Amino acid sequence: MDSEMKALGDRARKAAATLALAPAAQKNAALAAMASAIRRNGTAILAANARDMEQARRKNLKPSLVDRLTLTPDRLEAIARGLDDIAALPDPVGRLLARWTRPNGMEITRLSVPIGVIGIIYESRPNVTADAGGLCLKSGNAAILRGGSDAHESSLAIVACLSQGLAEAGLDPAAIQMVPTADRAAVGDMLAGLGGTIDLIVPRGGKSLVARVQADARVPVFSHLEGINHVFVDRDADPAMAEKIVLNAKMRRTGICGAAETILVDRAVAPVMLPKLIRVLTDAGCEVRGDAATQAAAASVKPAGEEDWSTEYLDAIVSMRVVDSVDEAMVHIARYGSQHTEAIITGNAATAETFLRTVDSAIVLHNASTQFADGGEFGFGAEIGIATGKLHARGPVGVEQLTTFKYQVRGSGQTRP
Amino acid sequence: MDSEMKALGDRARKAAATLALAPAAQKNAALAAMASAIRRNGTAILAANARDMEQARRKNLKPSLVDRLTLTPDRLEAIARGLDDIAALPDPVGRLLARWTRPNGMEITRLSVPIGVIGIIYESRPNVTADAGGLCLKSGNAAILRGGSDAHESSLAIVACLSQGLAEAGLDPAAIQMVPTADRAAVGDMLAGLGGTIDLIVPRGGKSLVARVQADARVPVFSHLEGINHVFVDRDADPAMAEKIVLNAKMRRTGICGAAETILVDRAVAPVMLPKLIRVLTDAGCEVRGDAATQAAAASVKPAGEEDWSTEYLDAIVSMRVVDSVDEAMVHIARYGSQHTEAIITGNAATAETFLRTVDSAIVLHNASTQFADGGEFGFGAEIGIATGKLHARGPVGVEQLTTFKYQVRGSGQTRP
Repeated sequence: MDSEMKALGDRARKAAATLALAPAAQKNAALAAMASAIRRNGTAILAANARDMEQARRKNLKPSLVDRLTLTPDRLEAIARGLDDIAALPDPVGRLLARWTRPNGMEITRLSVPIGVIGIIYESRPNVTADAGGLCLKSGNAAILRGGSDAHESSLAIVACLSQGLAEAGLDPAAIQMVPTADRAAVGDMLAGLGGTIDLIVPRGGKSLVARVQADARVPVFSHLEGINHVFVDRDADPAMAEKIVLNAKMRRTGICGAAETILVDRAVAPVMLPKLIRVLTDAGCEVRGDAATQAAAASVKPAGEEDWSTEYLDAIVSMRVVDSVDEAMVHIARYGSQHTEAIITGNAATAETFLRTVDSAIVLHNASTQFADGGEFGFGAEIGIATGKLHARGPVGVEQLTTFKYQVRGSGQTRP
Repeated sequence: MDSEMKALGDRARKAAATLALAPAAQKNAALAAMASAIRRNGTAILAANARDMEQARRKNLKPSLVDRLTLTPDRLEAIARGLDDIAALPDPVGRLLARWTRPNGMEITRLSVPIGVIGIIYESRPNVTADAGGLCLKSGNAAILRGGSDAHESSLAIVACLSQGLAEAGLDPAAIQMVPTADRAAVGDMLAGLGGTIDLIVPRGGKSLVARVQADARVPVFSHLEGINHVFVDRDADPAMAEKIVLNAKMRRTGICGAAETILVDRAVAPVMLPKLIRVLTDAGCEVRGDAATQAAAASVKPAGEEDWSTEYLDAIVSMRVVDSVDEAMVHIARYGSQHTEAIITGNAATAETFLRTVDSAIVLHNASTQFADGGEFGFGAEIGIATGKLHARGPVGVEQLTTFKYQVRGSGQTRP
């Protein structure tokens, strides 16, 4: 680890200590000042973005990557509004999580506190810079940001606004810092915890980025590798509801982690449901790959191979399979799923409860679309990502999930017998 | 990983799936049956223990290690009673942690669920076998136990009783399994997660064991490396209370992780307090090592070197230092502490709140002994250890901390706009 990275880590640790004690009003003032700095410096940010775009054109970057990179006045306003929205959330720090009194009179409280220093590793998306910085600040954590090099100029310009907002509110500008992207070893240093400085890593990006972080990180990581999400259409499903939810779960947006990838259909209703489901999906432009029973239901269905059941398409493709019962559906999910989000469509309350209770995924839904797997839709206000790890944070990771806790014990001279 | 370890992992994963759904009454029946099997098979367990002891004598094992290893009828009864106590705890699984309704009518609940498969790596202490197995079972988790080889026969005999209890209650005996200790690669396999089987590792043992686990584990670990705990005697402390708490915090039991290692004394009361504290500690047989001010207060005080401030003595030795104020005390704690447990003794409520709020340790106490850092003393019933990591579990780890959660969403056909 070079001295520049070490110094950056030391500054973050110092900023975290003061940030942990900052009152909600001060953090919110900083968020508002950050938003206003972004609005005020729009021209400079867009100019920086233009330099990134120019570079991207020279490098012949893929159009989808260029789109992510592109800032416009509208997108800039969305970034600023995102910070205002974070300011409006309830403060997640200092919540009284539990309180009890021991027989000896000691009062024990469990209080939410910030985690400390959070490292965010992300791709060339300038908006993540403000978003991640804002969520960390709200939750009292110092942020160390490492964004993709293609967005470097844009991110630098945005971080300048964030620093300005922090300083205006009297907070340490080192609460949100960017790693020099030219430093190729920086990601490795972060994954190793930056000499004991980083408490948590959150990767924001595609599967290869997340896989690398998961494989190499020596500190806890909040992440999900993939969302191989299932919708099970039970024998007692309302057919119209099943059609509507399956279509939404797969096709509303195919590229998000909450999109359904496999539809399981109860054999008892397969003759009725398969043609309906296949039609509504293909009409919407979705390619359907199915097992033998599904293929028999419509000529348009392509055969699904073994690998289809464990594929996250993130595209207008779905795999479909007929199962004998909710039990067989749950066996399929346990075998091929990624413990992200699964839904059951049924009018039978007992079947629904069995599914909700048994399926070991972060989010299990009854009669609702898997696309609700989102911090905003859960009412968390904003999320930094979705976690499929089992510990601490599971499902949408909002500001509350970016806190930990400590025990405060108030006594009157108690000693232990 | 050899095929035996792989098969063991597969059995554990399968057992975990059924255990997660087992009703509280069934788990408690198993715990009671396990306790009664231990009482019933006392002779066989003691005979197995005698074989371990014989082996230990041949190896010339240290007396402290032999003592840990030794089982007696009394100790066996304590093991059985421990299982009964765990049975009496409230069930930590299926607790409704939160429930709210979204504007679109979806009801979201956050429900406690078991973590899955927990690996416990411990030294040659037969009691840990029953204790860890029981706590995992109560929390609905499958346990993979890897105890020290010196207690192998004893642990095998105990696990046989646990399996019997599980079977009597109709639960999968593979819910609690022991790794063949002859397999030297087994610990490495466990730390690597046993091919995706193990969700969490809990080391139980000394610093070198914990350090190895922390360094090599590729799955989450609940542990603490050391407890360099501080008591700060503030200028507004009641002198008699300070004496009593300091003595208890250091000397009640010196070998536990909640024992105090450093006493910080406010300069304003040092002339009065230092002689009192030094006397009460030395009278109890404690060696006091101090800074210049402490040395000046009593001839018996030995000089404390820089390394003393970061030493966990786990013995009748204490380091003592005079600080200018609560602020300087907190700076010392931040620099040398291990984020385990710290106490302030003061009659000043504002000073106490500053300390409780600012000090970033799992447990912070006001006017009470650091030796209360214990799951039993917190009212958790029993603990599998103390964690100083920041995520998921912090402080005493009881059965509640051995659970995670999932979100259940109950809808009526909602799709995402």
